[in-house]
Amino acid sequence: IDKHVIDVSSGDPHKAGMPPISFIRQVMAVCLYPELLKEKSLPLDVRQRAQKLLDMCSGGSVGSYSTTSIGLPEVQKSISEFITRRDGGVLSHPEDIILTIGSQKGLSVFLNLLTSGEGKTQTGVLTPMPCPHTLPMLLDMTGLALVPYRLFEEQGWAVNLDELHRALEAGRVHCEPKAIYISNPGNPTGYVQDRETIEKVIRFAATNCLIILAEEVHQGSVYGQDKEFISYKKVLSEMGKTYAETMELVSFHSISTAYIGECGLRGGYMEVVNIDPAVKKCLNFTPSAPVLPQLALELSTPQLTVTFVLFLKEIHHIEDTLSQNAKRALEFLNRVEGMSCQPSMAGPFLYPRVHLPPHMVEEAKRLGVKADVLYCQRLLEEEGICVGAGCENGQEDKNYHIRHRYLLINNKINQFHRSFCEAMLTG
Amino acid sequence: IDKHVIDVSSGDPHKAGMPPISFIRQVMAVCLYPELLKEKSLPLDVRQRAQKLLDMCSGGSVGSYSTTSIGLPEVQKSISEFITRRDGGVLSHPEDIILTIGSQKGLSVFLNLLTSGEGKTQTGVLTPMPCPHTLPMLLDMTGLALVPYRLFEEQGWAVNLDELHRALEAGRVHCEPKAIYISNPGNPTGYVQDRETIEKVIRFAATNCLIILAEEVHQGSVYGQDKEFISYKKVLSEMGKTYAETMELVSFHSISTAYIGECGLRGGYMEVVNIDPAVKKCLNFTPSAPVLPQLALELSTPQLTVTFVLFLKEIHHIEDTLSQNAKRALEFLNRVEGMSCQPSMAGPFLYPRVHLPPHMVEEAKRLGVKADVLYCQRLLEEEGICVGAGCENGQEDKNYHIRHRYLLINNKINQFHRSFCEAMLTG
Repeated sequence: IDKHVIDVSSGDPHKAGMPPISFIRQVMAVCLYPELLKEKSLPLDVRQRAQKLLDMCSGGSVGSYSTTSIGLPEVQKSISEFITRRDGGVLSHPEDIILTIGSQKGLSVFLNLLTSGEGKTQTGVLTPMPCPHTLPMLLDMTGLALVPYRLFEEQGWAVNLDELHRALEAGRVHCEPKAIYISNPGNPTGYVQDRETIEKVIRFAATNCLIILAEEVHQGSVYGQDKEFISYKKVLSEMGKTYAETMELVSFHSISTAYIGECGLRGGYMEVVNIDPAVKKCLNFTPSAPVLPQLALELSTPQLTVTFVLFLKEIHHIEDTLSQNAKRALEFLNRVEGMSCQPSMAGPFLYPRVHLPPHMVEEAKRLGVKADVLYCQRLLEEEGICVGAGCENGQEDKNYHIRHRYLLINNKINQFHRSFCEAMLTG
Repeated sequence: IDKHVIDVSSGDPHKAGMPPISFIRQVMAVCLYPELLKEKSLPLDVRQRAQKLLDMCSGGSVGSYSTTSIGLPEVQKSISEFITRRDGGVLSHPEDIILTIGSQKGLSVFLNLLTSGEGKTQTGVLTPMPCPHTLPMLLDMTGLALVPYRLFEEQGWAVNLDELHRALEAGRVHCEPKAIYISNPGNPTGYVQDRETIEKVIRFAATNCLIILAEEVHQGSVYGQDKEFISYKKVLSEMGKTYAETMELVSFHSISTAYIGECGLRGGYMEVVNIDPAVKKCLNFTPSAPVLPQLALELSTPQLTVTFVLFLKEIHHIEDTLSQNAKRALEFLNRVEGMSCQPSMAGPFLYPRVHLPPHMVEEAKRLGVKADVLYCQRLLEEEGICVGAGCENGQEDKNYHIRHRYLLINNKINQFHRSFCEAMLTG
């Protein structure tokens, strides 16, 4: 392909041209090259904050090993304070914060600890369908059984409790389900769970002795009207001692998302609630956590300083742009004949259904590929647009979908979809 | 302990006050905050190099995902060119370079792929004693059997071929040895292997179908007179087709060592030689390699530019300081009564033998700790100096050792050693 390729399949904001937050980058630059502490052209509070971060590092250098393998204590503290503020005062404890190399790596480490048995005793994980496109392979590589629970498009991709019960029973036939994976706000659906749903899921997990793995990385990009992110931790803490002090919960977050969008830095953390201290010890997965992504994490929880005004301005600009783009992309996709898309409330993706004529599905079968994959391949070859096939998100049914980051809207999709369906009819 | 603690147990140069290389940090600072591209106070070639690195990143931002999960292709290329130069023209191929989060993580990923069987079919790894202090636990966590081969102090810690044969036979009784781990220059011994030894080890590995895992992270800090680092890859390539095209070899390197010393950035790579492409695929261990440590890797292979003069000057200053310190520390330790230390030729450590009187060994036994651990505990408590106990390096015999980074020399050790032995005599 010598066409210019536009990749809208992954949630990588900087790649798509979203600018980084100046404050974060300025402070990190000073930390890397402390001679810039004297650079008057950089704001004073940038330099002060950099000095504070350098003081956290052994020998005052980001080149020294992290003082503990799960993270710099000061960063753990900042993150726990951020969570406490976010959850309206529900306490988060620094020792429960484990710094990870992106949220994915944290998840992978935790899943490794869950792995045991084989055949009917193999550990199973209840997994939403659709789910984040990296999850099915991760479960497979870790040796865990994927126990699918469906999210229903006609219900706007909400979690359905009856379906959870059905899935659990079905899973118990071939493995031992020990955890439930939640993606909230949903990846790739953009659905935001309400308190009532979260309570029900927690009760369901408690009754069935399931650890809750809450992937909450898109918590900072909720734009749906009257929608707000409520963390599993907050709801759990407000459900009374029986739940709050016993239910095992791990929440994953990352700096790759929302207005931060620092995918390349690979920074994330997990907050572990009611997890056995012996298990916590095993979560030390590297001899030493990288220092720079820790600093970026620390910086992504805003503090009131002079530059804070610019920080907020940049955040609001990005947020406004994203929510407007999401709205425009949704309208656009719903105007394409043969496509329909549920409104998304959060996160970087839209997940439209693509109505493919039966003859095309036949054509794909003849070629030995899935119909949505064929669709995506052709869209890439003919228009240079790379979208994700719904089957990557674990969706195996006959409703075909594509995963589409709304940061860029491309009218080529419209033309392609029409000509693709037509070509298939006549061809 | 409210004393100030001086940690000389780990090889963390920046923590001990060794400055970073300006060029590396300047370029990285500009990459993080590209507004600095306009900053005239920064050298032109720093800014030009930063622009070049930014051009490698998707969307021109270090915040975008790495274009492939094993690393940016340009970085793979730079590293392979560095290796080709280092090995006097023996070709290294970019596709054989796999970027890792420090060398340890790379090793851990590869060891995971070796793991299989249990009891007599468990995979075993021939491991030097003494070895890097993090290795025994890593092997254990990965489910591999440690098959010890001893290095003999009286031979200056050289590899002994007879001992390799003995170790292999002994190992085969209880497991299936499939790999040999080599640390060259040796950690913690500082021994640098010569070509003849390396050839013998390669023949031994070939005869016995062992994969060679060559930890060569201290290649950049050889200071022993008339000593030079020769890579296993180079020797292998010059031993004729039978060896060069069949022997499986993995070499590990890192930016945490020598004059770079960037432990906190967690950057490393492995070069895989003659490894099955299917296995290579499995080495993709993260959805995306962090971008910043990749840039640091790229920058740690010097290129001829204006700032190169300063770069070289800084390197030479650091190297001179290190080799002088090593010499002084060696002389110092050999003057302490009851200590003796083999000359080290490379790397950050000295590994002196500590001659403990029998009554002290008895005392330790009574307390239920190893004698070298007791020694290190007391040294920490009484003088605030943290050295590593030789048993951490897997040394189980009755010759007690301590691991001591020579970057800092502390006369307190002398006083302590004398009073410790005396107190034990009278107490």
